[in-house]
Amino acid sequence: MNCIFCNIIDKKAHAEILYEDNETLVLLDIHPLNYGHTLVIPKEHHENILEVPSDLLKRMIIVLQETAEAVKTAVEADGFNIIVNTGRAAGQTIFHFHFHIIPRYKDDKVTKLQLKTYPEGEFKKYADKIRLVINNKVKKNG
Amino acid sequence: MNCIFCNIIDKKAHAEILYEDNETLVLLDIHPLNYGHTLVIPKEHHENILEVPSDLLKRMIIVLQETAEAVKTAVEADGFNIIVNTGRAAGQTIFHFHFHIIPRYKDDKVTKLQLKTYPEGEFKKYADKIRLVINNKVKKNG
Repeated sequence: MNCIFCNIIDKKAHAEILYEDNETLVLLDIHPLNYGHTLVIPKEHHENILEVPSDLLKRMIIVLQETAEAVKTAVEADGFNIIVNTGRAAGQTIFHFHFHIIPRYKDDKVTKLQLKTYPEGEFKKYADKIRLVINNKVKKNG
Repeated sequence: MNCIFCNIIDKKAHAEILYEDNETLVLLDIHPLNYGHTLVIPKEHHENILEVPSDLLKRMIIVLQETAEAVKTAVEADGFNIIVNTGRAAGQTIFHFHFHIIPRYKDDKVTKLQLKTYPEGEFKKYADKIRLVINNKVKKNG
């Protein structure tokens, strides 16, 4: 398997590494949506967020929170987005799980998103459809 | 304080609630980027991700992971995005922390994002700037 993130973790490929510990690595994205666009990745190879073990994911969200604050401060951003793309249809291009942190500035127009409207009666139908699956999947107090 | 999510949690405002436990609530977004667009919120009011206590954030990421899988299955999506908007500049409109889960389909064109290129020498400068802050903020093995 030739994974660019695994190669970076193994120091076989160069990257601007911003932070590293036993489980996670933080690096600057070379194709930024805004300057300072940063990635938080696990050292273990997992294809996407659904594959990441709970304990690792819990560690990652803390590193993500702390990193987001650091990035915002460092680049003097007004805010930031956190984005996870899961699957090619969602824009995932590297199949090693990563959180994106994108610094944002007032009126920078980085994201232009078009909201939809539910056709009459469909809102409740979608809710029913999801509820049917979710109650089997989401474990209470897990 | 008049917070729509707090009102939903207190059952003073209606919503399509998909899942609920002691700490979190999952609901269908009424202004979807795609049908099935779902929100995961904490019951405690925190303005944004930087304000959420670690233990609550760890619980939320697990509910997020399980919910994302459930939504993907329920609406038969090809993938999904997870998005967090922090600050008005980043598109945050409700100042009670929430994760967005957006189901995605091949060629649905929901996100059209324009990548930037770092001017000569700036990539390293941004890395240095962030590293300077991050090593004070991110606590190892926390």
